[in-house]
Order: sequence, then structure tokens, then C-alpha cells
Amino acid sequence: MIDLQKSALVVGVGAVAGLGAAYGRRFAMAGYRVLLAGRSPDKVETAAEDIRSRGGQARSIIGDASIEADAIKFASAAEDWAPLEVAVHNAGTNRRDSFLELEVANLEQLWREHTLGAFLTGREAARRMVPRGQGTILFTGATGSLRGKALFAAFAAAKAGVRALSQSLAREVGPKGIHVAHLIIDGGINGDRLLRSMPNLRGERGEDGLLLPDHIADTAFLVHQQKRSAWTQETDLRPWSEIY
Amino acid sequence: MIDLQKSALVVGVGAVAGLGAAYGRRFAMAGYRVLLAGRSPDKVETAAEDIRSRGGQARSIIGDASIEADAIKFASAAEDWAPLEVAVHNAGTNRRDSFLELEVANLEQLWREHTLGAFLTGREAARRMVPRGQGTILFTGATGSLRGKALFAAFAAAKAGVRALSQSLAREVGPKGIHVAHLIIDGGINGDRLLRSMPNLRGERGEDGLLLPDHIADTAFLVHQQKRSAWTQETDLRPWSEIY
Amino acid sequence: MIDLQKSALVVGVGAVAGLGAAYGRRFAMAGYRVLLAGRSPDKVETAAEDIRSRGGQARSIIGDASIEADAIKFASAAEDWAPLEVAVHNAGTNRRDSFLELEVANLEQLWREHTLGAFLTGREAARRMVPRGQGTILFTGATGSLRGKALFAAFAAAKAGVRALSQSLAREVGPKGIHVAHLIIDGGINGDRLLRSMPNLRGERGEDGLLLPDHIADTAFLVHQQKRSAWTQETDLRPWSEIY
Amino acid sequence: MIDLQKSALVVGVGAVAGLGAAYGRRFAMAGYRVLLAGRSPDKVETAAEDIRSRGGQARSIIGDASIEADAIKFASAAEDWAPLEVAVHNAGTNRRDSFLELEVANLEQLWREHTLGAFLTGREAARRMVPRGQGTILFTGATGSLRGKALFAAFAAAKAGVRALSQSLAREVGPKGIHVAHLIIDGGINGDRLLRSMPNLRGERGEDGLLLPDHIADTAFLVHQQKRSAWTQETDLRPWSEIY
Repeated sequence: MIDLQKSALVVGVGAVAGLGAAYGRRFAMAGYRVLLAGRSPDKVETAAEDIRSRGGQARSIIGDASIEADAIKFASAAEDWAPLEVAVHNAGTNRRDSFLELEVANLEQLWREHTLGAFLTGREAARRMVPRGQGTILFTGATGSLRGKALFAAFAAAKAGVRALSQSLAREVGPKGIHVAHLIIDGGINGDRLLRSMPNLRGERGEDGLLLPDHIADTAFLVHQQKRSAWTQETDLRPWSEIY
Repeated sequence: MIDLQKSALVVGVGAVAGLGAAYGRRFAMAGYRVLLAGRSPDKVETAAEDIRSRGGQARSIIGDASIEADAIKFASAAEDWAPLEVAVHNAGTNRRDSFLELEVANLEQLWREHTLGAFLTGREAARRMVPRGQGTILFTGATGSLRGKALFAAFAAAKAGVRALSQSLAREVGPKGIHVAHLIIDGGINGDRLLRSMPNLRGERGEDGLLLPDHIADTAFLVHQQKRSAWTQETDLRPWSEIY
Repeated sequence: MIDLQKSALVVGVGAVAGLGAAYGRRFAMAGYRVLLAGRSPDKVETAAEDIRSRGGQARSIIGDASIEADAIKFASAAEDWAPLEVAVHNAGTNRRDSFLELEVANLEQLWREHTLGAFLTGREAARRMVPRGQGTILFTGATGSLRGKALFAAFAAAKAGVRALSQSLAREVGPKGIHVAHLIIDGGINGDRLLRSMPNLRGERGEDGLLLPDHIADTAFLVHQQKRSAWTQETDLRPWSEIY
Repeated sequence: MIDLQKSALVVGVGAVAGLGAAYGRRFAMAGYRVLLAGRSPDKVETAAEDIRSRGGQARSIIGDASIEADAIKFASAAEDWAPLEVAVHNAGTNRRDSFLELEVANLEQLWREHTLGAFLTGREAARRMVPRGQGTILFTGATGSLRGKALFAAFAAAKAGVRALSQSLAREVGPKGIHVAHLIIDGGINGDRLLRSMPNLRGERGEDGLLLPDHIADTAFLVHQQKRSAWTQETDLRPWSEIY
């Protein structure tokens, strides 16, 4: 299978139940050698082990995608394993602050996690893909990518930056054969992070009322598979019952 | 196969090389009973015959989706054949006019083809799908759906109306289990219509430099297949080499 | 005063407390000969008398801007009085329907009031302004101009059409010296119509919690006065306390 | 005059011919005590002297708005002179890079100039204005605020961040009486910076074919003067002849 000859890098992997792990699982199911990158060794290795236990090929690598050396390390390790065909940026946290109380360190932290990490992941992937004229670079967006809500200035600014980067990169490297897409996850993700902070949410929203990571990853994979005559640059994803 | 028990209605079918026929082909390949609707008997029947020659199930029906009785006839005929699971609106032409010379009849004509036809197709599909709590309604958009260019006021107004309808419908029937999505076709389609008016365009744009109808239809099908925890409401599609 | 030599046409004038009358008042205060157009003779003439009682010049004219002959009559009457310098489209109603119950006649009615009326007002104004290379054409938008909410499909489709028209027209006649702008009124207007249907709303929203027509008209006038090196094509307007 | 009791802070002042100086001039003409802040002592003081020579009140202050201590110093100095009523953020440069060659330091530099500087200017202004329940905070945007063009990733990401901040801030402090607006300058500014790099542009674009800083500043002032029942959160500004 030709896909066994290719690697997929997922940056921003945490718990097995999270979105990063789901991206990895999906590409592994399709035969990719999947490199999972994240900051927490236990979590990332557990996610890799989960994929291997399902018969997929996965490795973990530890680091912070907002640190240039780490971002280079991630892309190089994937490329060394097999030609890098897919890179997904999924890193970054959210926070709630009054604008008047928001501190520079926190604004900057979210910029580093989202915007800078996405930039480095995208640039390092593009550097390896452009010479071959093929590959897919995916960025994970959110409702906040499109508009700044009250009390979420740091997140919105960081996510808006990612979206702008995805557009600039798409326009530059699309004509060189690289597919760049931005997925706007417009709703709560049924994952570890949200449910720890709001444990009742799953019950309140009802069946499929939160975004399931594996279903987001399905769309990511399908976007990757699109033929180049008809590429998606941006798509939203939200639960059927979402009130928006 | 369960899909043999379901029908898909495609409204706005012309030449076999066009987008309407491609939508039909794609759903027929997946086992749907496909009802192709259009205004030109020869073309629609040829497109249906093309599907049947490939082993799919297809029928043609003639009428104008902007005429209420015809739109009802389309949906009823599909539903009578098998429960309506998918409806796609693809009808409508484009035109170029100075705003100062644009006539009411022409503005209204494009409103009827795009906005009114999309409304009736969507309403009649939703009326049949909502009681079952499942189904997909797809609308075909264009670059003009997002912004009005000079000299394309009639088209932009009509397409902007379709987009607004798709959003209202999605918000109303999404929580009832119906998936409504709007595909923004952002570029020239490598089909009969464009190439007749601009015969050199295919050469100028290069390989895959125009949107191939079958590749658009692939994404339409994949959007239909999305799990309801992560539905796309809007996605763009454009050729890899598009300068935008 | 040079402005005494110019006319302003306001299409869609109802009660004195409404937005149409406020537009007229504002331009009359600046010295324009203001022609107020609407469908209800008593209301339009009362609004004109109100302006005259304040020392302004105003006349009323009765008709329906979505009827071509009436739209031409409006623009011609203004032009006959003094060169047409400003045209404002403000006509159109709103309605709430389930998409599944919405009737063609109602969808079409809102298209006629908003989209067709705006088209005719804009076209007839542009035809008179372009030869002189100056003038301003203003369109009144709403929250629904940008997105289709559940149950407001007819309004959203009609208003999205107006917005697209304003963009096409701006791009075509801007370089000919005509300033075209779209004002998105993003909130409830403190006028006759809203307060009749929701009489408690003014109290609930608090002071200045609804948009005051005279304040909207102030911005319309200021947009008109912008120098051509820095024209607004679109601006939003909402109350300070609006939760959005 | 009551406005003599109030101060306006303009952050990002360079040459007298630039936009920052024009903002200052406009508010000084209206009677504000204007504090001009920038990084180049000669330029900022020259701009202040220009205002004083026209009879306005202006002072200069030197620093970098992306440095927290300087941003605090700016707002405090304005507030010490007279209650801070207006703050305008106008700082930041542009650059052109291949995404593949863009360096972290340059991406970060533009984030600091635009996003971080806008954040600090906005936060420090809001901290002083919220207790009084009045004031206006203006952010200068650009075409790149809305979409990322090829080769302008750093600028687009930084400007998209500013826009998101302006939205979050507006939603939080609007209901507290503070007017926050984002001006999208959609075209070339007829100022020092552009004309040094593209000296023929003024001729090519023709009369008023570039945005004149004083005309942008006029709209900024008018947005500030809007009554709170009808505030603009975002407006675009472009030259009449701009092809877009």
C-alpha cells in the first residue's frame, strides 16, 4: 500500500479521548505512519499505544510546537520515518478573562500556542512538501476564529491569527500542489478537556450534542483526500443540535 | 443494501458533463435511486441514461424548480420511488450586466432560478424529511454568494439569497435531524456551460485548473455522509491553482 | 447655499417616528430638498409636514418602490425638483415563519419590498447621478443581511440580496464618483413598528437600548459627507448595550 | 468648551503626513488635548508642533506601545493631562515574505506591533474609561484584517488579531458605556510610508485614488461622536476608485 510509505504529523496530542489522538487514529487507519506530538509524554505515548493496539503505526514525540527547534524536530522526525504527506495543527488552550484584567503573559501564551505553533507547524510542513508538490496541511479553528466574544479576547486573537495564516499559506502553496485547509470547530468537543470542566454538559446537550473527535477527524481525512480540482480551504463543523 | 431503499433528488440537471449530472452520478454510485430534474428533456434523460449505463438507478423528470407545482412534483416523485434522503439544488444561470442597464425581468429571472428554486427544493425536501428525522439538503453556491462583483448584481443577489436560506433552514431543521449544507463553488467549473462560452479557458488554467464536476460531487457526498455530531454547514471548493 | 440646489430621495417612509422620516429630517436639516416616498399617503405627508414645520423643505410622493414605474416616478420627481444628490432605500417589512410553512407569495413579497425595491431605487438614482459624477446611494440593512436565523428565511434572503446589490453597485459606480454604502442596523429600532408589536421592549432595554432613528440618520448623513478618498461601503450600527 | 477638559491619545505617530498625525490633528481641531505617542522622537515632536502651530493643544511622548510600561505611561500621561476620552491605536508595520522563508522573529515582531500594542492601548484606555462610563477606543485595521493574502502572512495574522481584540473589547465594555470601533483601511494610504516605497503610486492612482489620512481621521472623529444608541463597531474605508 502506497500510504504505508507516507507519514502524517499531528501536533497537539493529549488524552486518547481528545481531538489530537482522533486525528492520529484516523490517518493511521488509512495506513499512514502517524507521528503524534505533544507536551505531555504520558498522554502522547498512550495515544500512540492506542493506535498501535488497533493495528496502526504510530510513534510519539515530545515537545512544544511553539518552540522553533521542537517544531523542526517534529517535522524532521516524521519526514525521516516516511515522506511527510499530512500535517495537522491542533495545539492550544482557551481561557476566560476580563479584557481589563488580561495580562500580557496570558495573551502571549495563547498566541504562542495557537498562532506561533500553527505557523511553525505549517512552515516546516510546507518546506518539506513543496519540493514534492504534494501534501496537506490542516489547521484546527474554533468559533473564536471568526469573532471575538466578550471575555475571550486572548483566544479569539490567537485563533484569528491562525485563520489568517492558513489563508496566506493556502494562497502561496496551493498553486504548488499543497492543500491547506482550516477546520472551524463551532461547538463544544466531546473530549477530555471540556468534560472535566463542565461534567454535566454531555447530559445537557443530548446524544451527539457535542462534537465527537472521531467525527471531526473523519472530515479532516476527507478534506485531505479531495482531488486538487476542488479543494476546501475552510469548512465549519458543528453538532446537529447546536443552537447558533 | 439499505441505500437502495432511498432516493436522491438532484434539481438543475443539464448536460452529462455538468455539475447536476455529476451529483446524480455520485449518489447513484452509492446505491441511491436518483431522480434527475431539469428543464431540458433531452439533456436530463441523457444524464439519467448515462447513470443507468454505469449500473446505477436513475430516472428523469422535467420541470422548473422555481414553479411551485413542479418543485412539489419533483419531491413527490422521488419520495414515491423511495424515501427521500438527499436533495440537491443546482439550478440557475449567470449573466453580466451593467447595473444601470439591468432590467427587472432579468433580476427577477435569476432570483427565480436560484433563490426561489432553492427555497422550493429545500422546503419540499424538508417537509418529507423532518417527519423521519433524517436527510440531507445541499445547495450549490458560488463566489458570488459571498460578495457582489461589478456587473454581476443579479447573480450575486440571487446567490446571496440562497446562502441566507440555507442558513435559516439549517438552524431550523438541524435540531430535527436534517443536515443542510451550502457548497461555495469558488472558481470556474470544467463543464459544458463555461467551456462553450470560453473555449480556451481549460488550456489557460492548466490541468485541474477548473473545478471538475465529479470532484465537487465527491465532496457533496462526503458532506452527506458526515455524522451528525460534526456537520458542515458551509464549505468552499476551489481549484488548487486558483488565484483568489 | 449650494445644498438648496440639491434633492434627497428617501424611499420607504412611514410614521414620523420611523427611520424613513428620520433620514428625511436629517437631510432636510442640511438644506436638501427632501422627497419622501412611501405607500401610505397619510403617513408620508405627515412626515413631510413635520419636516416643513421645522423649517425644512420636504414633499411627499406616494407609490411602491418595487413597482418599476413608481421607482422611476420617485427618482424623476426628485430630479425635477433639484439634481438628485442622495437616495436612501429604507422600505420593507419582516416576518416570522417556519421554513416548512413559508409560502412562495410571502418569500416573493419580501424579495420585492427589499431586494427589488433597493435595486430599482439604486438603479434609478445611479442613472441620474452617474452623468454628473457625484451622489450618494444608501441602503438600509439589518442583522439578517449577514446571516439567516431560524424562522426568518424570507427576511434574510431578501436582505442578503440587498447587500449583494449594494456591493455590485459600489464597485461599478464608485469609480464614476458615486458613493454607495450599506448600513447594517444590528438591533431593534426605537420606532413605531417595533414598539407596537413589543410595547415593553423600550423599558426592558433601558435608555438608548434601542436604536434611535435620528441617530442612525446622523451616521447616514456623515457617510454621505465623507470625502471620496475614504469612503465607507459598509458600516454596522448597534446600541451600546446590545448583547450580540 | 468642555472638550478642552478632555484628552485624546494617539498611539503610533510618525511623519506629519501620516495617519497617526492626522488622527491627532483631527481631535485637536475639536478641542481635545492630544497626546501623540511614537517611537521616533523627532517625528512625534514635529507632529505635535504642527498641531500647536495650527492652534491646537498637543504633546509628544516617546515609547513603544507593545512594551507594557510604555503603554501604561502613555495612558497615564494623557489621563494626567485631562480625562482620557479617546484612544486610537495606529502602530505597526507591514512586510512581505514567502511563508516558507518567514522567520519567527518577524512574525512575532508584527504581532507585537499590531496585536500586543493594540491590546495594551485598549486595555489601558478601558481601565481609565470604564469607571467614568464613557470614552472611545479606536483600532486601525487594514485589508489584511479580513483575509490573509499570499506573502503577507505576518501582517494578516497580526491584523486579524487586532480585529478579534476589538470585537471582544466592544462586547465587554460597550454595555459599560465605552465605544470600541475598528476601522478597516482598505487601500493604500497617501502617506509618507507608501509613497517612499512606491513613489509613482500617487500618479498612477489619480486624484483621491489613495486614502488621505485627514479623511480617514474625519471618519474616526465622526465615529467617536456617534450617539450611543447607534454605534459603529466596524466600518471600512476605501478610495472611490479602488478596484476591489
